[in-house]
Parts: sequence; structure tokens; C-alpha cells
Amino acid sequence: MKRLKVGIFGGSGYGGSELLRILLFHPQAEVALVTANEHAGKPVGAVHRNLLGLTELSFTRAPEEFESLADLDFVFLALPHGQAMEIVPRLPESVRAIDLSGDFRLRRREEFEKHYGREHTAPELQSAFVYGLTETNREQIREARFISNPGCFATATLLGLAPLAAEGVLSGRVIVDAKTGSSGSGAKAAANTHHPQRMNSFYAYKPFTHQHVPEIEQALRAVGDWTSELVFMTHSLPVARGIFASIYAETTGEMTVEDVRRLFTRFYRDAFFVRLVEGSPDINWVKTTNFCDIGFAARGRQLVVFSALDNLVKGAAGQAVQNMNLMAGLDEKTGLILAGTNP
Amino acid sequence: MKRLKVGIFGGSGYGGSELLRILLFHPQAEVALVTANEHAGKPVGAVHRNLLGLTELSFTRAPEEFESLADLDFVFLALPHGQAMEIVPRLPESVRAIDLSGDFRLRRREEFEKHYGREHTAPELQSAFVYGLTETNREQIREARFISNPGCFATATLLGLAPLAAEGVLSGRVIVDAKTGSSGSGAKAAANTHHPQRMNSFYAYKPFTHQHVPEIEQALRAVGDWTSELVFMTHSLPVARGIFASIYAETTGEMTVEDVRRLFTRFYRDAFFVRLVEGSPDINWVKTTNFCDIGFAARGRQLVVFSALDNLVKGAAGQAVQNMNLMAGLDEKTGLILAGTNP
Amino acid sequence: MKRLKVGIFGGSGYGGSELLRILLFHPQAEVALVTANEHAGKPVGAVHRNLLGLTELSFTRAPEEFESLADLDFVFLALPHGQAMEIVPRLPESVRAIDLSGDFRLRRREEFEKHYGREHTAPELQSAFVYGLTETNREQIREARFISNPGCFATATLLGLAPLAAEGVLSGRVIVDAKTGSSGSGAKAAANTHHPQRMNSFYAYKPFTHQHVPEIEQALRAVGDWTSELVFMTHSLPVARGIFASIYAETTGEMTVEDVRRLFTRFYRDAFFVRLVEGSPDINWVKTTNFCDIGFAARGRQLVVFSALDNLVKGAAGQAVQNMNLMAGLDEKTGLILAGTNP
Amino acid sequence: MKRLKVGIFGGSGYGGSELLRILLFHPQAEVALVTANEHAGKPVGAVHRNLLGLTELSFTRAPEEFESLADLDFVFLALPHGQAMEIVPRLPESVRAIDLSGDFRLRRREEFEKHYGREHTAPELQSAFVYGLTETNREQIREARFISNPGCFATATLLGLAPLAAEGVLSGRVIVDAKTGSSGSGAKAAANTHHPQRMNSFYAYKPFTHQHVPEIEQALRAVGDWTSELVFMTHSLPVARGIFASIYAETTGEMTVEDVRRLFTRFYRDAFFVRLVEGSPDINWVKTTNFCDIGFAARGRQLVVFSALDNLVKGAAGQAVQNMNLMAGLDEKTGLILAGTNP
Repeated sequence: MKRLKVGIFGGSGYGGSELLRILLFHPQAEVALVTANEHAGKPVGAVHRNLLGLTELSFTRAPEEFESLADLDFVFLALPHGQAMEIVPRLPESVRAIDLSGDFRLRRREEFEKHYGREHTAPELQSAFVYGLTETNREQIREARFISNPGCFATATLLGLAPLAAEGVLSGRVIVDAKTGSSGSGAKAAANTHHPQRMNSFYAYKPFTHQHVPEIEQALRAVGDWTSELVFMTHSLPVARGIFASIYAETTGEMTVEDVRRLFTRFYRDAFFVRLVEGSPDINWVKTTNFCDIGFAARGRQLVVFSALDNLVKGAAGQAVQNMNLMAGLDEKTGLILAGTNP
Repeated sequence: MKRLKVGIFGGSGYGGSELLRILLFHPQAEVALVTANEHAGKPVGAVHRNLLGLTELSFTRAPEEFESLADLDFVFLALPHGQAMEIVPRLPESVRAIDLSGDFRLRRREEFEKHYGREHTAPELQSAFVYGLTETNREQIREARFISNPGCFATATLLGLAPLAAEGVLSGRVIVDAKTGSSGSGAKAAANTHHPQRMNSFYAYKPFTHQHVPEIEQALRAVGDWTSELVFMTHSLPVARGIFASIYAETTGEMTVEDVRRLFTRFYRDAFFVRLVEGSPDINWVKTTNFCDIGFAARGRQLVVFSALDNLVKGAAGQAVQNMNLMAGLDEKTGLILAGTNP
Repeated sequence: MKRLKVGIFGGSGYGGSELLRILLFHPQAEVALVTANEHAGKPVGAVHRNLLGLTELSFTRAPEEFESLADLDFVFLALPHGQAMEIVPRLPESVRAIDLSGDFRLRRREEFEKHYGREHTAPELQSAFVYGLTETNREQIREARFISNPGCFATATLLGLAPLAAEGVLSGRVIVDAKTGSSGSGAKAAANTHHPQRMNSFYAYKPFTHQHVPEIEQALRAVGDWTSELVFMTHSLPVARGIFASIYAETTGEMTVEDVRRLFTRFYRDAFFVRLVEGSPDINWVKTTNFCDIGFAARGRQLVVFSALDNLVKGAAGQAVQNMNLMAGLDEKTGLILAGTNP
Repeated sequence: MKRLKVGIFGGSGYGGSELLRILLFHPQAEVALVTANEHAGKPVGAVHRNLLGLTELSFTRAPEEFESLADLDFVFLALPHGQAMEIVPRLPESVRAIDLSGDFRLRRREEFEKHYGREHTAPELQSAFVYGLTETNREQIREARFISNPGCFATATLLGLAPLAAEGVLSGRVIVDAKTGSSGSGAKAAANTHHPQRMNSFYAYKPFTHQHVPEIEQALRAVGDWTSELVFMTHSLPVARGIFASIYAETTGEMTVEDVRRLFTRFYRDAFFVRLVEGSPDINWVKTTNFCDIGFAARGRQLVVFSALDNLVKGAAGQAVQNMNLMAGLDEKTGLILAGTNP
């Protein structure tokens, strides 16, 4: 098989950094283009110094006109919110695209504009996008031309809730207490990621208003008969990588941990990257990997699902490549056996 | 006024370490005795090297017989669970005691034995103990001879819930997603506090079974008409100090953040050590202090209270000294203006 | 005694933050003014949230004209390099000043201009400044009107080298391998303190060119007959606070650790804030305190001195207050018994 | 080519953990055996939870008799010091071995016994061992049956000094200020790796007496005409992984950074895993990889070499596999393209 030619828009952020870490070593892909306007001309290994010695690639400016992209098979868009909607309409027809931003995640234009605080300039393309939560959407993803890759919090939450929503066992409100590492704020220094503060911090932010809330609700409605109220709260952890979601639900009837595990095992029987663990997962065991680890606690009708993943891998670049694999007819694991480390 | 003579049983752990840091500089107290069997004879500053140069005190063995303690005004018991109940019955009658362990926190003997996994050897003394959550129990504390000092998780949770329970505005189950720093596991090295693992970890533990659950429920029943179901989940944070509790409640009617703040302001009008903050508290701002910072988020009847404190200070040694101050007729702040640091 | 009225220029940075933490609780001082142009009008406790509830003070803009400062006894200048030299000439004659920046540390104007990359606009005032390394300069400090407070690296290095230089036992070059925590880079977020990177980093910076080099050499010449070559290398540590200097020297004759300790004990016999420790010091035991802990290793004529302090306290604000105490005729320890914590 | 059959003795420690992370995905190797007495019978993924889902392998007890090992091509010994010398003499003749402990690193028995504090029980085998610093010993390694894999500090130091020693440009004493992450203390919890302390610590340990000193001196004598005095000082860093060595040397004549770089470039022309960087290396960029990053600073005859690597990879398991590759006639990079991550 000929190697897939891929381009990455936005190669200097953490999403781009992780796409490069994965795609440069993907046995069926070849990175033909990686853009980063502020670093144009610089070798990739001079910016992402982890990759020094591992690639000859250099960053380029984003092309002025897009015909030149026609020989690409896939384009990954790892840009700040609002830029993908400018780029996607201009892509040559033969190019498939995976967008890691929020631009095409929300079906309803009003919801996008409310949560992202900007006008949508390509709403007509929304229907061409498939939501890329791989484990629940494989068939559609295989056929898609455009993928909107899920948010990191949304992925952790949805992988913990989807089996329950699909089975229709949820009753009443669901509370998600979610925590993220500092890389979730991106590669640019900012007050909330200033090391002397952050290393001793834990705090909540964006209560009730996080932009992943409508994304989660929309995806749960797609999976099952979701009517619960969602209380979603995000917090900041003093680690570089990792999302941990503690999901508090009530079930329609009493369930033991074993009951729940059976339900999840069935739902995820083909999902290599979902690991059902004993007790609690730990972000320590998923960091740098494409795994989402899930564990459970239950008492009567009270159920708690714990979900842990690496925000930059399963929560971003890893899942994006997983989706590309499916779209290209490859095994979804290709290039994604990124073993974590101990310690 | 003559200085209070105080003794500390268990001076080598983190609770003892913090008692020393506070009491050695308390303007109305004098540490006359500090025990630590394994360090007997060693200067305090050789073990707690932060105190080197600040005290001439040395550790001693716990005394064989207790008559010698008769000239002490107060004894602090900072020992592993199960030891205070052996010591308290032997204390001379003139000595008042503040126990930082769980030995006398639970009124009902069966609950103690279930949650602490041991027989209670002094159940007859239980009724002599007052629960030392200062902000809700000041009057009783002033008159008490014995104080059972609250657990760290319990303090954070109760300070966030007590005003709501007292006002009777809670409806339905309450979910507490609580997180603690690694010093909560004590001063002895253990697998779950092994630095190479812990620095990148976040995980849940003791789901539904934490020994602070009955303590919290008992205290809430004392404060108001508590009938809610409590779902209480503890997690481990990769910081040294700090507890952060995200408390999810439903209120009987809709409440805004301002409504809630008013309610809390009234309840804590005399509580110097409870600070009501804008937005979320952050453990970074309470570390090493006796403050509990509390913030709110609300939507309709959904209310989230965020509560942050230092597990070793307001969650242990600081609150213990606050209680001693009340028992001795002092201002509760005496010796407790421990300014935090930035960063 | 009437309380000293003090003003702080530059109250929003970490130096200012620490001056506030100390001076607000100093029994003989009263903070009458604290400037921070970007935060003018805001309560101190809204910016340094550790101080919330502990002070009613608000930030002001720096005054336009300085006559209003005439009732201040002391002014602390905690500003970026280059600003103190604009302010000091305008201070009313009755006001004494302690400058935490590098503006007046170097006697020779050319050295200042070379290392700080700017013209000196008040060179005529240089001779009015006394170098504020308290432990070596007490008598001059008591009489001074202006103090240039030492740099953090310089303090750690000088306290480790001064006794040896004074005794004339050094031979050949001296190598200082110095490491600092991230708060040394200041309170503003920057690439080198971005949490996701910094938490796993250790690297060297400014090899051979750090601006503390001429400061150290000048101070050593003042203390003894310093003719050694100094190799000074700075590194970044992934902690918030702390400087650790490993100082490699050769002595003119063989010295045991006990010999060295005796020499240091004599030199520092009146120095409460220098603690000579067994084995190595640890930044963990000096963080948030005004102590400098010093330890030794020796083999034949090879001597290694280890020096540890908190860059923001003994390396900045703490030493500044120590100097103010001397200038005001107070015990140098006044307000500086800042007990560290364990952990 | 038939896959190499390898066995790992001591699979539960960090060395074993990293050997598994590498060898399970090595395209030419197959892990046939991994021992861990305390975990015998448990799946590897239950202990090293990063490997959950990636291997079906279970731990076994070390075999009673060793004939069964005859079908192994390689045995890795990742055991505490003192155990390899009991095992190696019993290995079937066809089995080659790579020892990650210190048992066979020192040629002179007296030096071993002095530094490791135990009798050597197989001194007759010492001469059959080749020192596995790959970059300086490739030819001997290819022919070796037994490899003593270098210590982590020794690797970082030697890669920074070998080119200079080989070229004969060193003059006078050499000072190595070396720092290690907490995983260097092993996988077992201990006081010096207790998270609440370690996360804010930096301190020196084993001054002048670290067991890697004779190893470094012996290796430098093998490489060139080493006659300098070595001052070697080890320190503890609050990160999980990484060694950083600041190496202070004097050169026989003046050298610029470019002169030094040319010398190193020539010496390491075939060394894929040594990266010569601009400015300082950073442990952040080598963590989890087999790279050693080296940078320089120079002034006149003063030269500083900075060397950074991951103590568990290039400092242990990675270099061990690199040696196996050579011994097996493979490209030394096989299975070792472990891209680091940003962040």
C-alpha cells in the first residue's frame, strides 16, 4: 500500500506536537507538510526538541492557495478555534480532513456561536462532518470525508457515559467532576500555567459554562435516549498531562460493579483503547498513550464511573490518528501502540 | 496570664510537626512535652529540620505513668487511630485533651468499630467528647474537657455544607468529590506516596467507604435536619498539602450565587478562618494556613460549593489549636495568623 | 517605640509579595504605602490571595511627586532593574531606602552597564549605598541610608564562600554550580516557567555571564584577599522556591569537615539565620524562611560547600527586612521568625 | 531472521519495567521469561499498569535450575547489586547476558568490595565482561558474551568526558556536579522518595563516595590518558526521570564552544543517540528516550559540558538493549526509536 500523505496545519502547539510524534513514526503515513507561521523555516526538531534527530522536516507557512494540497490524502487541523472553518471550505475535493478544534463539533449553529463566542463562517459544511468519538461512531467515521475530533473533556466523559446512555439505565441528573493537566491550556505561557503557582494549585474553572457541555449532550443524545440533566465542572490539576473524570450517576435499578463491568465489557468489546480496570484508573498509567482507562464504584443505585486519559493523545492527536486509520481502511491501532511508562 | 503548659503525644508525624510549628510560637502556650518513641532523646530540630535553630526541645518517650502530666493544661494526641482511647482514660483529671485521631469522633460505637476496624476500649468516654468543628460548635467547645478534632476531609466538607443544612435548603442526594494532597497519607513512606509515581498521578480511592462519611453525616445531623443521601468520593492529588472538595447539591428552590453567598456570610459572620471567595478557591492560597476558602457556582437549583483548606492546618493541627484557644478563654485566632505565601 | 512607617514600591511581584507577608506582621513596622501601577486601587488580598482577610491595604500608583513620602521611615524598592535609579535621587532626605534590584549593587559603573545592558542614570549615588549582605556587613548597614540588597544567587554563594575568603584558605579557581526555583523568574508568566515544560525540566542558563558574577567577586574582594578565578553556572529547578549552590573549592592545605565547620562556626557565631547542618542542606527545609543552611564535604584539599536558601526570603525580601531591622536599631530577627514547614 | 529469545531477571523494578517497555515492542526480540519473585503468577500488566492490554506475559519465579534457560539467546539481569554474581556463573554456555547492576563493572575486586560493601563471589568472571558504554566500546561489545551495563551517572558523565579524555585536552581536576530524578532510587518507597518531602527538595548525597566514581575513572583510563583528579558530587532532583551532569574541566589550551563541538562531532560521528545541542540540554527533552543530549559553555581554558539523559533508558534499559542489538548483529537503533514527548 502506498503511504498516506498527510499535512498538519498548526504544528507548533501541543496538538501539533503530538500529531508529529505519532505520524512521523506511523508505518502507513508520511508527513508531507506541517505549518507553523511563527516558526516557518525552522526544523521541527528545533521547536519540538524531543524530535531532534528524528526528522528532517521543517515548518512552513500555511499555503496561500490550496491547490498544492491536492496530493495530500489527509489534512489535520490543529489550530485555535475559528480557523478550521476558514480552511475547510478551501480544501481540494480529494483531501479528507480531521479537525481537532471545536469549529465543527456542534450541530446547531446557535450553540456554536454561544459557546465559542464567534460567528460560524461555514455552517453549510457542518452536516458533512462526522463526530470522531471512535468507539461509538466507527461506521460513520470510515465513510466520512470530514471529522470533527472530540474535545478532551468530552472524550473522557463520553467514554464513561456512552454505555450507560446506550443501555438506557440512567435516571436523574448526572454530575461530572472533571480535572485536567496544564497542557490542556496549550503551549503558550499564561498566568494559569505559571509554574510557581500551578505546581501547588487545584481549583475549579468555567463552572456550568464549559464549551464541552453541549458537545457531550449532543453526543449522548446520538448514542441513546439521553434526558438527564448534566452538571459538568472542570478543574485544574498540577500535572502536565491527563484528564480524570469522576462521573456520578443514578441507575434505574440497583447495579453492582460486576453488572456495570459486564455492560461496559459488552459495549467496548471491540475497543482496544478502552481498558476496564479494577478499582480506580490513574492518569499516571495512561499518560502519553491512546488508552482511556475506566473503573467503577457502586452502591445501590449510586454509580460512579472513573475515566482517565491523556488529554493530548486519546483526548486529541491520538484519537485523530485513530480516526484517520479507519477512514483509510487501516486497523485503528496502526501507529498508536504508544506504550506508557512506569514511572 | 500564665502560659498554658501543653504536651504533644505523637510529635514525629505531620500532625505533630504542625502542632509544633504552631505551638512553639504561640504567645500564650509553652510546649512542655513532646513524645516520639522512635526519636526519643533527639532534638526536635533534628527530625523536623524546618525547626532547627528555633527550639531547644527534644523528643521523649511517652511516659510510663501519667501523674507527671498533672501540671499540663492541655494534651494534644496526634497518634495513629487506636492509641488515644488507651491514653485518655489515664489522663489526670486536671488535664484537658484534644484528640486529632478518629478515636472519639463517632458517637455510635458500632460505627466506630465498622469504619476503624477495631474494638473501642473506652466507649464510656465518648460522651465526654465534643466534636471540634470550631465554626459550628464554639459554645460547646469552650466548656469541653475533651475534644475530638475533625478529620481533614470532614472539615472541608462540613464547612461547605453546614450553612445549607442549617438553613434546611438541601434536597435530594449530595455528592462530594474530594481530593487530598500526599501529606494526608502521613509522614511514613508508602507505595501510594512514592515520588516517581505520585508526581504524575490522580486517582480515586476508598469509594463509598471512607471513614469520614459517618463523621460528616453525624455532624450534619447535629447542625440541621440532614436527610440527604451522601455520596462521598476521595481522590489523591500530586501536591504535598491541600484538600479541595467540590460539593454538588440541589436546593429546595432556585438560588443564585449571591443568595448562597448571603446565606454563608450570615452563617460565618464570626468565622475569621472561613473566607468566602469570588469564583473558585485554590489550595495554593490556603496552603500552610488555618483558612478554609469557600466559593460557589449555581444554576437553577443546582448548587456547587467549592471548599479548600490545608489538610494539616485547618484540617488538623490548626483547628486543634483553635479549639484549645477557645477552651482556654483566648481569642480563637491566637497563634494562628499563619500567613500563606505567594507563590 | 513608634512603629516604623514603611513604603513598598513594586508590590505586585514576588519580591513585593514577600515584603508584604513579612512587614504586615512585623511588630515594629507599619506598611503605609504599597504601589503597583497595574493593580492600583485593588485590595492587596485580591492580588496576593494568600493575604486575603489579613490586611485592609490597597495598592496605589507610584506617587507623582515624592514630598508625600517624607513621613516614611523606610522605602523598599522591589522593582525591575533600572527603576530604582530613577526613584532614589528623588527621595526626601529623611527617608532611608533598601533596593532589591541590581541598580546599586556594582561599584563600577562600567560593570553595571555591561551586565545590566543599560546606562546608569544615578552613578553619583553609588557610593552612598552599602551592600546588604547582612552577615558580613552589619556595622556598615546599621549606619547606612541606602542599602543595595544582594541578589539571590549572590547571597547563597557569598554565605558559602565568605568565611573561606576571609580566612584566606582558598587556592585556585572556585566553581559554583547554582540552581534556582521558578519563582526566581518573577511573577509574570513566561516560556521558561510554563508549567507543562518546567515541571519536568532541569537545564543550565546564562553560562559565565550571569549578572551576579561581578557582584560576588566584588563582595569577596571586600571580605578578604580574593584572587581566585570564579566559574559560576546557573541552572533551573522544577520547584517554586529555593536556591541551592554547590561550591567547589581547593584549600591551601588539607582540611577536614570538622576544620571547616569550626571556621564557619566562628565566622557565623552571631548569625542566627545561618544554620550549619550535618551533611547536605535541602531547600525543602529553608523554603519560606529567612535561613541559609550550609553543609560541607571534604577530601584532602578538595572542599565542597553546599548552601541552600529561599530565593524570595533570605535571597530577597527577608534579608531586606533584616537590613531594615539593623538600620532601625532593632534586633535583626524582628519579624523574621518565619518557621518553615514539614512537609 | 529468527527473533531473539530474551529473559529478564528482576522484572518488577524500574529497570525491568523499562526493559519490558522496550523489548515487548522490539521487532527482533521476544520476551520468553520475566521473573519477579514477589509477583510470580501475576500478569505483567497488573504490576506495570502502563502495559495493561499490551502483553499477555506473566511474571514467574526465578528458575531453580538453569538448564531450562538454554534456549534463550539473551538474559538481562535487572536485579539489586549482588545477585548477578550468583546467577551469571550458572548460565548455560549458549546464553549471553547483560547485567544492569554494579556487580561486574569494576575490574579490581578490591574496588568492588570497597564500594559495594560485599564480597565478590565470582571474580574469575570479571574478565569475561565488557563494559557496555556503547558509544566508546562498540567493537568489543559486538564480540562480548557478557556485558556490564554502565551506571546512570557514569553514562551521563562519561559521554560528556570521553571525547575530551580521548583527545588528551584535559588539564587539572575535573568537577562533576550530577543530579538525578527520584526513579534512580528504585521502585520501592523510601524516606528520600516520600512525595510530600521530595516534591520540594534538592540536596546532595554520598559526597565523594558514590560507587560510580571508580567506574568513571576506570572507563576514562580505558578511553585516553586520564590523570585528572575527579570530584564527583551527586544530588537529588524533584522529577521522576532524568540525569543532568554539569562537568567542569580545564583544557590544556583555550578552546571555543565551536572547537569543542567539532571535537565532539568527530568523536560521536556514528553515535545516533548522542545529540549535540545548542546551549544547554534539558532533561525534559530526553525523558523516556535513549538519547543523551550534550551542550557546552567555554571561556578561555574553562570548559563546561552539560550532559542530560533518562536514567532508566540511556542510563539503564535502553543502553542495555542497544548493547544487545550490537551483540546480535542488529542495527543498534533497533527497537530504540522511543520518541520523547512535548510536553
